[in-house]
Amino acid sequence: MTTTLAVRYTGARTLETGPSTTAPPGPGEVELAPAFVGVCGTDLHIFHGSMDARVTMPAVLGHEMSGRITRVGPGIVDWQPGDAVTVMPLRWDGDCPACTAGHRHICHRLNFIGIDSPGAMQQRWTVPAATLVRLPPTLALDSAALVEPTAVAVHDVGRAAVQPGERVVVIGGGPIGVLIALVARSRGAEVRLVELSDYRRSLAARMGLSTWNPATDDIAERASEWTQGAGAEVSFEVSGAAAGVTTAVDVLGVRGRLCLVAIHPQPREVNLHRFFWRELTLVGARLYDRTDFEQAVGLVADGTVPADLLITKVVPLAEAASAFDALETGGDVMKVLIECGNS
Amino acid sequence: MTTTLAVRYTGARTLETGPSTTAPPGPGEVELAPAFVGVCGTDLHIFHGSMDARVTMPAVLGHEMSGRITRVGPGIVDWQPGDAVTVMPLRWDGDCPACTAGHRHICHRLNFIGIDSPGAMQQRWTVPAATLVRLPPTLALDSAALVEPTAVAVHDVGRAAVQPGERVVVIGGGPIGVLIALVARSRGAEVRLVELSDYRRSLAARMGLSTWNPATDDIAERASEWTQGAGAEVSFEVSGAAAGVTTAVDVLGVRGRLCLVAIHPQPREVNLHRFFWRELTLVGARLYDRTDFEQAVGLVADGTVPADLLITKVVPLAEAASAFDALETGGDVMKVLIECGNS
Repeated sequence: MTTTLAVRYTGARTLETGPSTTAPPGPGEVELAPAFVGVCGTDLHIFHGSMDARVTMPAVLGHEMSGRITRVGPGIVDWQPGDAVTVMPLRWDGDCPACTAGHRHICHRLNFIGIDSPGAMQQRWTVPAATLVRLPPTLALDSAALVEPTAVAVHDVGRAAVQPGERVVVIGGGPIGVLIALVARSRGAEVRLVELSDYRRSLAARMGLSTWNPATDDIAERASEWTQGAGAEVSFEVSGAAAGVTTAVDVLGVRGRLCLVAIHPQPREVNLHRFFWRELTLVGARLYDRTDFEQAVGLVADGTVPADLLITKVVPLAEAASAFDALETGGDVMKVLIECGNS
Repeated sequence: MTTTLAVRYTGARTLETGPSTTAPPGPGEVELAPAFVGVCGTDLHIFHGSMDARVTMPAVLGHEMSGRITRVGPGIVDWQPGDAVTVMPLRWDGDCPACTAGHRHICHRLNFIGIDSPGAMQQRWTVPAATLVRLPPTLALDSAALVEPTAVAVHDVGRAAVQPGERVVVIGGGPIGVLIALVARSRGAEVRLVELSDYRRSLAARMGLSTWNPATDDIAERASEWTQGAGAEVSFEVSGAAAGVTTAVDVLGVRGRLCLVAIHPQPREVNLHRFFWRELTLVGARLYDRTDFEQAVGLVADGTVPADLLITKVVPLAEAASAFDALETGGDVMKVLIECGNS
């Protein structure tokens, strides 16, 4: 048994760092040494205690990661200790209606690793080899922690079927919104990012993204001017706010597609008349599949995703709580990584 | 000038029958003798006074019709007096963003004939020849008055991209809901029709449609049992009710498509979390294009649409108000036609 450190969520607003013993990986498993772990909005929700009904405490969080293989279990031939990897943190049952229909990532009984089973905020982490995604040796491991959220963005842009030359409005300029904007732009779309935070707008501007401020701009009017009255072809609702939904509908032209990315726990009022009148489409998008993940590796590796600008802060594992605090106070922050002491 | 009869809407709940003089058709126009005109839900809305801001009074209503050509204007070579026709009641400007994008039926400045300009509830009706759709000589003109609503159903089923073998739940069993169910079934789908009215359910059953009663059945549960827990591939919201929207979402399985057909003037609360979680799609559908109309002619002509069962009642032009009354009292009625005295 190996004894290392792990960070555990033990109840609302409480993270405890302590020792963890790791058994050797079993058949089909690999043991990793996580290098960097990004903190996601969902992790923050868990930290707030909002998902205690789902999470089994003490819980090791973390599903945006990079690292190296330390040990491989019996029967593993494709992977070796030292390989740089990230993990697609999904386990599906393979026989539910979703899996049978070929949509395993939305399996009816999906096990999301890092929420439903232990995640990456620890120094050793055992996962099924089937979840591994290889990282190119040239890719820095801190940057590689952005692969998972980038895969979300790739999936979303794919669900919206963004085409070159289309005009895309992204509502919400947090990490996922910015990544969607970057991926859509890389597909040849013209993009406008709508975000309240001055810091996030200016950071997006440094990435060459055009932004609108919903506090001072009438976004629907701006979109109409931008498109000579036609309206945008695509919008992404990434804000999670009721007003974001309204805006995402209002900016669209005839046959426009609204890709719903944010989680809206409560029902929202939606202008269905506009959906009828303009023959709009709303498309829900959740997680990713392996293709999305592999594309995401490429986009981080080739600099389409400017990791240096997106990563605001890196904190050591033992100070993981400070990463959550930084995100919670909502100041001038984009992505915060936890460094596990293995890099 | 020809003097004949017309029915005019002159204000809430008032229809007046009086003489109408008709000038000879101009270049590109034809004059028709309407035979039968169906009363649509939108006509009923106008009758209630709910659309007075849009309708220029006195207004001749009616856009679901069949008839014969009486005169053709200068330059018309494809049509002759006596030809049996229906009218696709749309005029578009041709240069708005919708038209430019190829979606002329949702033109930004659409002129819907029968609402925005005079309709068919009169004995002579002049329309652009471009709106004519030819009827086969074997098709009875009363049945042919169902072509327009059938074109709506064809368009809706097309927007939802219904495939053979898919399970389809139609919420709302009025004329459009029943027609959608019939068209979807003709495409090889398995269909369940959800309708409160005993009369409409029993009428649908006579067409061989399986029905569910939302007053006594938990529709989401029935859909789950029906699909062995998977959920339906497609739902159509045709009820216009808030509960209909909820049900149309709840019955869908992963990647299910909700086709929004009904008009919801007010925003509705929508379970967006389910759209995210199951990666659902909502598709707005409005009107039709010429392809839809031509398919609809075929479906009425070949009996896929059982006109004899759908047409509850035929009233003479001078008693048009009684057709509206019959629909309004909401009794045992499906489609009501007005006979213009030309058949």
